[in-house]
Amino acid sequence: MKTSIIKEFEKVELKNPILLEGFPGLGMVGSIATKYLVKHLNAKKLAVLHSPHFPYHVIVNKKGSARLLRGEFYFWKNEAGENDFIFLTGDSQAQTIEGQFEVANSILDFAEAKKVKTIVTIGGYRNEIEGTPNVVAVSTTPALLERALKANAVPSESGTPIVGTAGLLLGLAKFRRLDAVCLLGETRGYLPDPRTAKSVIEVLQGLLGISVDLKGLDKDIEQSKEILGRMQDIEKRRVKYMQKMRRVEEERITYIS
Amino acid sequence: MKTSIIKEFEKVELKNPILLEGFPGLGMVGSIATKYLVKHLNAKKLAVLHSPHFPYHVIVNKKGSARLLRGEFYFWKNEAGENDFIFLTGDSQAQTIEGQFEVANSILDFAEAKKVKTIVTIGGYRNEIEGTPNVVAVSTTPALLERALKANAVPSESGTPIVGTAGLLLGLAKFRRLDAVCLLGETRGYLPDPRTAKSVIEVLQGLLGISVDLKGLDKDIEQSKEILGRMQDIEKRRVKYMQKMRRVEEERITYIS
Amino acid sequence: MKTSIIKEFEKVELKNPILLEGFPGLGMVGSIATKYLVKHLNAKKLAVLHSPHFPYHVIVNKKGSARLLRGEFYFWKNEAGENDFIFLTGDSQAQTIEGQFEVANSILDFAEAKKVKTIVTIGGYRNEIEGTPNVVAVSTTPALLERALKANAVPSESGTPIVGTAGLLLGLAKFRRLDAVCLLGETRGYLPDPRTAKSVIEVLQGLLGISVDLKGLDKDIEQSKEILGRMQDIEKRRVKYMQKMRRVEEERITYIS
Amino acid sequence: MKTSIIKEFEKVELKNPILLEGFPGLGMVGSIATKYLVKHLNAKKLAVLHSPHFPYHVIVNKKGSARLLRGEFYFWKNEAGENDFIFLTGDSQAQTIEGQFEVANSILDFAEAKKVKTIVTIGGYRNEIEGTPNVVAVSTTPALLERALKANAVPSESGTPIVGTAGLLLGLAKFRRLDAVCLLGETRGYLPDPRTAKSVIEVLQGLLGISVDLKGLDKDIEQSKEILGRMQDIEKRRVKYMQKMRRVEEERITYIS
Repeated sequence: MKTSIIKEFEKVELKNPILLEGFPGLGMVGSIATKYLVKHLNAKKLAVLHSPHFPYHVIVNKKGSARLLRGEFYFWKNEAGENDFIFLTGDSQAQTIEGQFEVANSILDFAEAKKVKTIVTIGGYRNEIEGTPNVVAVSTTPALLERALKANAVPSESGTPIVGTAGLLLGLAKFRRLDAVCLLGETRGYLPDPRTAKSVIEVLQGLLGISVDLKGLDKDIEQSKEILGRMQDIEKRRVKYMQKMRRVEEERITYIS
Repeated sequence: MKTSIIKEFEKVELKNPILLEGFPGLGMVGSIATKYLVKHLNAKKLAVLHSPHFPYHVIVNKKGSARLLRGEFYFWKNEAGENDFIFLTGDSQAQTIEGQFEVANSILDFAEAKKVKTIVTIGGYRNEIEGTPNVVAVSTTPALLERALKANAVPSESGTPIVGTAGLLLGLAKFRRLDAVCLLGETRGYLPDPRTAKSVIEVLQGLLGISVDLKGLDKDIEQSKEILGRMQDIEKRRVKYMQKMRRVEEERITYIS
Repeated sequence: MKTSIIKEFEKVELKNPILLEGFPGLGMVGSIATKYLVKHLNAKKLAVLHSPHFPYHVIVNKKGSARLLRGEFYFWKNEAGENDFIFLTGDSQAQTIEGQFEVANSILDFAEAKKVKTIVTIGGYRNEIEGTPNVVAVSTTPALLERALKANAVPSESGTPIVGTAGLLLGLAKFRRLDAVCLLGETRGYLPDPRTAKSVIEVLQGLLGISVDLKGLDKDIEQSKEILGRMQDIEKRRVKYMQKMRRVEEERITYIS
Repeated sequence: MKTSIIKEFEKVELKNPILLEGFPGLGMVGSIATKYLVKHLNAKKLAVLHSPHFPYHVIVNKKGSARLLRGEFYFWKNEAGENDFIFLTGDSQAQTIEGQFEVANSILDFAEAKKVKTIVTIGGYRNEIEGTPNVVAVSTTPALLERALKANAVPSESGTPIVGTAGLLLGLAKFRRLDAVCLLGETRGYLPDPRTAKSVIEVLQGLLGISVDLKGLDKDIEQSKEILGRMQDIEKRRVKYMQKMRRVEEERITYIS
């Protein structure tokens, strides 16, 4: 295994498939959203991606077996709509610069073999959130950007970098004349963020004309609020302590100098 | 040498050989256990593995000569049992991500050429030990896991990562339809840990139906206990000093603020 | 994309073209100067360079689209002179050692295909500046060095390293029997430095017999002076505070010891 | 340039040539000794080695030109003896693990093409020196080790690592059935160390039956002693200050607790 390998489980015929990618990244927004869709749309396993650019360890599963880190492709036959879907998520992104490019290109090779014409990538961008998290849309195709904005995404400032697979798929899709849009949910980013993943799925519903029950995310959101609350308390006490220390230090200087 | 090279010393015919791997890693559990078996079963040199992914230095041996870091394969003809053995240990693991995958695959190529059907890998996992160290078993094959548990290994929690060669061999073996089991001994991990290596060998004896005298390890265990004792004393004093410092600092703040 | 790719937009016939390269680096001197020339000479897009050795992210542009980091080639038909020009600038340099060599060689392959015989590279070197920043010239060709010195560049001390693309193009040009000169503007280097870029362009005008209006840089220079002023104030206060702290600490020691 | 390239300046016929390598490393022992021999034996340029694994910069030379970092091969026709010599020194070693192996192998390819049968590598090993620095010898060939010990080298402890080109050439020479010996001079290692280089050359004279006037090194040795003296003064004052600080801190704790 000198290059990434994608192994198909099943040969399926897909109708104008759209590839939706969400790998782990900032706030785990991409992987939470994609995994939620896979579960609630009851998508089926399509293929796995293995790569020598993923971290060199295996993880133990529930049955006491172990497996390499991997990317996972799922498919969903969207009877009601014009497009079937391929979902891609996984355990990890590639660990080196050259590996990131190699993995992204092997994903696009697979997508083209499956006759994918449109790619949607999901990620997070760091911000202090007030109220409902924003979802920023960036697209290589004006019409696709327009549709994302109509679905309540907001435009991105120019100059923003989109790091990793979500960004590279977008950048490399251009050369293959594939349409691509990236949705980035606003997140503090240091904890898994189901709240932001929910915002992203809400945009996805409008953008892609799909419909999923989002109640399943609300419990995760409650839990993450509690954890966040505790972490903020700790942070506040730390800041207060630091301020006190600084004051003490300043007084001492004033006194001696 | 752009890729790993395995050079055989001798062409031997082995009976249903099992590959047992233990490279240096956490607590040196894998290499201590494997080297002990090689020595006490009087296993013979089979092959060496050289790799451009190993550290770029040589080490001086007793005769004042020097050699590259390497992997070492030994074989043991197990007259009494159904399986002969190939042992693999060495000086170091590969130093880069892509190198780890390359080395693991070249080991498996060699194993398949030798008609190996079963692979056992050994490592350590970090934990504070109480009493006898546990040995966790993970296997790609339910029957093999079952046998390991019968031999007093304990099942692993799901989600645990197994890093390095011991893990990758397991993960990559699957694709080659080889059975594989990994035994991880519980170890504090910051010192060579013969105590944990002994626990692993005890499980190996039950799992593989081999028998070795373990007394040779007891002297090493005594020595490592002494070293550990001294290190714990130092650590205790350090913690006590830090607590005192913190108290001093707090009192000063109380006083001034 | 396993290696760098240069994609031409347009087949143009260029008259004894000179390649002028200025990638981002110390003080952004190379990219500021090159981009200024591209804009004020109204140079046209010639080609883009994409590379798996560039950082693995895309950047969002003004239209809400995104693109890979890239190198950009422009051409300018210099009606009045003997040489047309190819300008090369971009977002980033290669991120690994081997990548730096690969990118530099692919640039030179392209230059040779375009019949370039002379290469000019631009960068910065770190120094505390007094008055007008110096521009140091280094060249593989004595005649070219001579011309740069006549255009008010100063000779370099021997032993100076020139890091990155500006240096490698020079070093690798030799093997291809191309003439090459590197101009390094003196810069503090921790901020984009249009003042130094201006000095470099002044030398370039003399060296290459081209003429551009430099007034456009003066506004940027004013702005950067203000930013620098504010940063120096902060730095002065920091130094003063550190000195005070040290004095306090020393007095305390004197008192106690 | 995807791999290292060795370019010959001149086709020379050499009589049983010995390759003597000394790249920059600990205390610069290898490069100081080799460059001294090149100069005082009046050896001639034979070839240069360029590599994409060397640092990605060029260095400016005395004429204001610049060149890539490189390895330099020199030859010396040893009229009086049985062996001619090839000397190899340079600016830098390879910067990545895989690069170190690639460069070492390309050196050995060249040596074999030149019919070299014996390789001598030079480096430093870190130690506090008392009196004349020791020179440790390590060899893949007992007879060669014997000769080095007779020439006043001392044997190495087993387990010592020899890092970098000096070590890898030794380790890789074995596979090509070349004799190789490594001489490591004892050095503090944080400054260029002509004193240790002199000790190494003294051993080389006995080992190789060559004779060079060593007076040229004595001036460098005097200079380096002065620098070392100043650095040790600074270090002593620093240690004293640290001790005072610690005492102050301890007294304060005693007082408060």
